Amino acid sequence: MDEVTSKALELHKDGKIATVVPRRKRVTPETLPYFYTPHVAKVCKEFQANPSLRREYSHSGRTVAVISDGTRVLGLGDIGPFGAMPVMEGKSMLFISFTGGKINSFPLCLGTKDPEEFIRTVINVAPSFGAINLEDISQPKCFYILERLRDELRRLSTPIPVWHDDQQGTAAVVLAGLLNALKVAGKKIGDVQIVVNGAGAAGLRITDYLLLLGAKGGNIIVLDSKGAIYASREDMGAPESKYKKQLAADRTNPSSRRGALADVIAGADVLISASSPAEVERVITQDAIRKMNPNSVVFVVENPTPKQLLENLKAWGVRVLANGSFAPNQVNNMLVFPGIMWGVIDSGAKEITDEMVIAGVKALAASVRAPTETEIVPLPSIKVSRKIARAVAKAAKTQS
Amino acid sequence: MDEVTSKALELHKDGKIATVVPRRKRVTPETLPYFYTPHVAKVCKEFQANPSLRREYSHSGRTVAVISDGTRVLGLGDIGPFGAMPVMEGKSMLFISFTGGKINSFPLCLGTKDPEEFIRTVINVAPSFGAINLEDISQPKCFYILERLRDELRRLSTPIPVWHDDQQGTAAVVLAGLLNALKVAGKKIGDVQIVVNGAGAAGLRITDYLLLLGAKGGNIIVLDSKGAIYASREDMGAPESKYKKQLAADRTNPSSRRGALADVIAGADVLISASSPAEVERVITQDAIRKMNPNSVVFVVENPTPKQLLENLKAWGVRVLANGSFAPNQVNNMLVFPGIMWGVIDSGAKEITDEMVIAGVKALAASVRAPTETEIVPLPSIKVSRKIARAVAKAAKTQS
Repeated sequence: MDEVTSKALELHKDGKIATVVPRRKRVTPETLPYFYTPHVAKVCKEFQANPSLRREYSHSGRTVAVISDGTRVLGLGDIGPFGAMPVMEGKSMLFISFTGGKINSFPLCLGTKDPEEFIRTVINVAPSFGAINLEDISQPKCFYILERLRDELRRLSTPIPVWHDDQQGTAAVVLAGLLNALKVAGKKIGDVQIVVNGAGAAGLRITDYLLLLGAKGGNIIVLDSKGAIYASREDMGAPESKYKKQLAADRTNPSSRRGALADVIAGADVLISASSPAEVERVITQDAIRKMNPNSVVFVVENPTPKQLLENLKAWGVRVLANGSFAPNQVNNMLVFPGIMWGVIDSGAKEITDEMVIAGVKALAASVRAPTETEIVPLPSIKVSRKIARAVAKAAKTQS
Repeated sequence: MDEVTSKALELHKDGKIATVVPRRKRVTPETLPYFYTPHVAKVCKEFQANPSLRREYSHSGRTVAVISDGTRVLGLGDIGPFGAMPVMEGKSMLFISFTGGKINSFPLCLGTKDPEEFIRTVINVAPSFGAINLEDISQPKCFYILERLRDELRRLSTPIPVWHDDQQGTAAVVLAGLLNALKVAGKKIGDVQIVVNGAGAAGLRITDYLLLLGAKGGNIIVLDSKGAIYASREDMGAPESKYKKQLAADRTNPSSRRGALADVIAGADVLISASSPAEVERVITQDAIRKMNPNSVVFVVENPTPKQLLENLKAWGVRVLANGSFAPNQVNNMLVFPGIMWGVIDSGAKEITDEMVIAGVKALAASVRAPTETEIVPLPSIKVSRKIARAVAKAAKTQS
């Protein structure tokens, strides 16, 4: 066993989260009948009549379920529900740590790979939670699963908000970082030419948020592993083509430029790569980067990010460089998911709208007062989460 | 709002359980990469290769899921998943409190009443838990659900033990109390005449355990709401008849005695009632009790137990009297479920066998050194749970 594994195991001893009774609520012969039978029945009746009471009188209303089927965990691929648990438990830990306990979280790794069964299971457990965070689900089923769950869970008599962190969380932190990176580079989002390398969960949602934040579709080209995506392209892969069409082909690259990254990057101001660690090392070459405009901004958000590539990108003259794994400028989801869910739950929102996420993106960007080349995002903290939470809750209330 | 409700709500403020990071594991910039990406991947790989590691390095292997569909909660009936949560959360709290945190627990209230969908959902969430405690599911589907889940979960490559507390838990605590009550009354389980009033989840399993502990089937009569159960009786209710036949008709009342409680109780030494609070008040009359043998033992385990009935039973000359709701001699599941699951998880058992439960029953009975009329069971405590856990774990190891 290597050193990192043994240190990682040592830090995991007894697990990372524990479900405990708050100390101030000692179970005594006097309080037991209230906590449990018979008087707990009184609380049951109140909850039955008004489920929103659970936000105040049960852990459940403030607990975010972190749910995965273990089919695409980090760079490890399909490692199943047992293999996935340390990541999901870690995610729950971060929800709790970076909200100072204002949000609880519990990880569920499901023993099914069938999308319909996954959806039914999530719907069935949903009443036990205040919100649902989907995680590490393979593509393209993750798009379909999120779409179906958003639709079904918002139509419940007690709606449960849901999001997929690999789509919305990654896109949100990238966009917050990008807003500050453009400040440093002295460019405006409405003017810049943007190349998005990767049309998976993150890449497509990043494209979506770029447009919401004012980037022009005519200035964006999205690539998948087969090259630039354009409206009439046919080999987009049957099941995901719907999402690639909706999010990329129909809204970007109007002049139908074709080819690989090196063929379309000339004159770009921004490159955002969200493919796989192996893929990004292959396509981001010195030739490609040298074709970009001066004061270029490059985000390599693959996780883990290849360290050598980061060294190279610096040497090749990139002005502002961000990545998924290392300081400085680590644009990792953990900067946003605790704050977003905190705001969602505090506001009692029925669903997580784009407007709420964009409000969180702006709050995260604004939390760095004077961005520099090596500080486009803050370190994760309760304070940062609280700022995001307030902005998200405000946006939720404005729209309802 | 009445006084009990407002005190109950006050004690539920912020919920009864919280999912927290153990204090000794501070998240620092140095430890974060081990708790989460990238080094958590090392732990994932270890878990994928060997899922039993989760008992040591994840909360999940020591967490008991408390799962209900909210269709039969306390005396409240079908109050749905939101209404059921305070009970399930309370149960999770007791798992934690009465094992001193050796066992974790998390409540899931499912938003489906369909047995097949319930079963699929439990199987799908099972890999996230060390064991599963089913709770407050209506009859007769609870029998079918337990049978199917025991069968399916023990055949998984990583088996997950499951039990239904309203069946096995209630029966276990009743039998432990009965063993001591018979000592006080100076009678032997192999000799006594026994009437079981109620053929639901608890009544049928109590009958099962009576036979396992040495009571003679020829000395037992089980009644449902229509009267004594005998082999050729036809009106047993279509779906549950299978369980009534297996557990009662085929193994008790060989002389096919018929009639209501008052018709079959003459000469009984033991009456165990596990029907509904309304039903028990109707059928347990002074006439019926006066027909019992001297030194009679009566268990009224309906919850909540009608208080006036307890007063009456004492006045009518019952020697040892136990009930489900009040001290003394409160035979409540909370005396056994924490210890049973602690033993199950410590032993790494693949399933919960009758032998393991019976070992727990005997350990619970033995925890009262010198039983008296007012002390046939101990108060719930970590110490009592530990004794049960050790006996259960020993039985699990003997059989494997």
